[in-house]
Amino acid sequence: MHELVIKDLLNKMKIQNPLVHHITNNVTINDCANVTLAIGGSPVMATSIDEVADMVNLANALVINFGTIDDQTFDAMILAGKAANEKGIPVIFDPVGVGATPFRTKKAQELLNKVSVSIVRGNATEVYALIGGDAQTRGVDAGKIPLSNEKLALKASKDLKAITVISGKLDVISNGEETKSIENGDIWLTRITGTGCMTTSLIGCFASITNDFFSAAIAGMSVMSLSGERAKTRLNQNDGIGTYRVMLMDEISLITAEIWEEGVRFA
Amino acid sequence: MHELVIKDLLNKMKIQNPLVHHITNNVTINDCANVTLAIGGSPVMATSIDEVADMVNLANALVINFGTIDDQTFDAMILAGKAANEKGIPVIFDPVGVGATPFRTKKAQELLNKVSVSIVRGNATEVYALIGGDAQTRGVDAGKIPLSNEKLALKASKDLKAITVISGKLDVISNGEETKSIENGDIWLTRITGTGCMTTSLIGCFASITNDFFSAAIAGMSVMSLSGERAKTRLNQNDGIGTYRVMLMDEISLITAEIWEEGVRFA
Amino acid sequence: MHELVIKDLLNKMKIQNPLVHHITNNVTINDCANVTLAIGGSPVMATSIDEVADMVNLANALVINFGTIDDQTFDAMILAGKAANEKGIPVIFDPVGVGATPFRTKKAQELLNKVSVSIVRGNATEVYALIGGDAQTRGVDAGKIPLSNEKLALKASKDLKAITVISGKLDVISNGEETKSIENGDIWLTRITGTGCMTTSLIGCFASITNDFFSAAIAGMSVMSLSGERAKTRLNQNDGIGTYRVMLMDEISLITAEIWEEGVRFA
Repeated sequence: MHELVIKDLLNKMKIQNPLVHHITNNVTINDCANVTLAIGGSPVMATSIDEVADMVNLANALVINFGTIDDQTFDAMILAGKAANEKGIPVIFDPVGVGATPFRTKKAQELLNKVSVSIVRGNATEVYALIGGDAQTRGVDAGKIPLSNEKLALKASKDLKAITVISGKLDVISNGEETKSIENGDIWLTRITGTGCMTTSLIGCFASITNDFFSAAIAGMSVMSLSGERAKTRLNQNDGIGTYRVMLMDEISLITAEIWEEGVRFA
Repeated sequence: MHELVIKDLLNKMKIQNPLVHHITNNVTINDCANVTLAIGGSPVMATSIDEVADMVNLANALVINFGTIDDQTFDAMILAGKAANEKGIPVIFDPVGVGATPFRTKKAQELLNKVSVSIVRGNATEVYALIGGDAQTRGVDAGKIPLSNEKLALKASKDLKAITVISGKLDVISNGEETKSIENGDIWLTRITGTGCMTTSLIGCFASITNDFFSAAIAGMSVMSLSGERAKTRLNQNDGIGTYRVMLMDEISLITAEIWEEGVRFA
Repeated sequence: MHELVIKDLLNKMKIQNPLVHHITNNVTINDCANVTLAIGGSPVMATSIDEVADMVNLANALVINFGTIDDQTFDAMILAGKAANEKGIPVIFDPVGVGATPFRTKKAQELLNKVSVSIVRGNATEVYALIGGDAQTRGVDAGKIPLSNEKLALKASKDLKAITVISGKLDVISNGEETKSIENGDIWLTRITGTGCMTTSLIGCFASITNDFFSAAIAGMSVMSLSGERAKTRLNQNDGIGTYRVMLMDEISLITAEIWEEGVRFA
């Protein structure tokens, strides 16, 4: 069922070329723009409070990423988020580092109170912190939590009233009733910066061309994990993370409905 | 005529190693720095209002790029632009996304009123918006306009009193009297972020070592389009936009007067 | 002696996976994050004054880089630096462009007055400016100074009470009594942006897992210079700086104690 929708989304993406507005971090902003282009979307990254609402009015989805958040950027996120809600386009939220500092956790709560979010994507500790847990996130890396990712995704999706994606060894996506797990991936996806952020951007692209946000979330997550796996197989013995990063972007830009269908493995 | 000047500029660039000050966006700032180094210039990207004027006094050209503009950055641009005018070094302006939001259009007008700009480079809709047209720019992509790029470049150059470069399938450069069109290029140049910004940086490099800004603009634009074309021919079947981006930077760093002369095609 | 320590650090890095907090510039922030991952550390780049002190409390070292400094970022640096001093983790300072503008020089002095810095890394003109010399730095490039790099490193280390690393044709590291010089390197390291910043990040990684900051500084500097040399040998005739940048990150991610021992050359 989701498979058919996702294949259709992959086929339509490069034709529809949706505009995906990002308010994101300074570390991986270039990667987010390039991955949006790679899958067939069109990125825009305006951040001034004087124009984010206008830009959202041109866009098909809004990605909010907390990577290097500060008060100024946060204000722009709220403004853009409200404009997106009003327009009826999906808001995709990446709670980078939430749980690591009180500031991040507080700001994330504030965002969720003021903006209706369609999809959340993070690692387990970030998502756990988002629903009030304390997993001692260490920086932007995942910590330890007392729930399985499957149960956490299910609970978070209910609590947050948003499709929830947890990236990990097994990626889990839940709509609050159903969960779907993806087996693809490679440990090297954790050895370069930005793969989480880029996954959120991919999800934003898919969510911008369908109302089936559950399928969109599965699509974005699985495209990243499958591409990360395929990129690894292209490496030679002397290749390191520099080459891996290039191959990853290659694979994302080359993915088709056929490649996806043949390669994706649900648990 | 231009050909001789451009070959000479290409020969001199790596020897003169001009300092090109950028006030640019957070998305492609790294690409702009690397492309400046690739062609033989030296980039500096200071943005604090407390030092931009001092930095301009060390520089040979100033590149102003509107990609992720906000009020603070804009103030720095005005300060730096005035310092550049006073010192007599060229200001190269990239009106990224102008026309997409009222904020951008207003700020661009304000910049043009306060700073004398030597060269403008954008896509057709951005340049059209700059001279008062409404082309419904969608984000940072090109929209539809009622003039040919050739006529638009000519008119914009007269109106703005600046060499005008319009990037597109055919790149057009005008000095208000003459226009020159470049046939080189590849559609993949639109599939990675930053090729427009990087072209503006290249133009800034060339403009920093000559008073013939028309030739400098042709040089920067043609180096990008020719390198984009050459990079494409180096790709293998399994290569995507990750590899393309690497090859593009390679080609720019390897270009010589001889390669340019042999490869460039004027319409 | 240092050799044994450094080999041990290289072996331990990927196991200990230290968290290295950066407050750095917008140009090379992605490179700094990726190089930290490449060597085996974990990067965090938070910059808001509302959380930098909390983030430092999770971190094992703090890297402060002046690349695109402004008043807001500077305040965050001071806050984070004081928190690092209180916690007893090392502060590594990269005085990018100091000497180029009065603003940078003044801010660097202010930082050194308020924060105790364990290691400083820059080019000769930056370090010279830091101890009160005037070398007419041109942007972020090295200028001319009247001391040998060896004497400068020694003097700076005494004056600043910090291990001092000067990157150059010969890299020099001093602890105020002893100096160590590294012969590895390649001119192409100066042809891409960020190699200096990345070296400082590498030093931060090593300093985060030992109290022997002299060895840590030698380790970080030599890993960069050796990797830059090794990357160059992997290039084919048609490769330029795009490919070089990828190979450099590859080599850093692939370095081992054995590769390092075999390749490093002290003068």
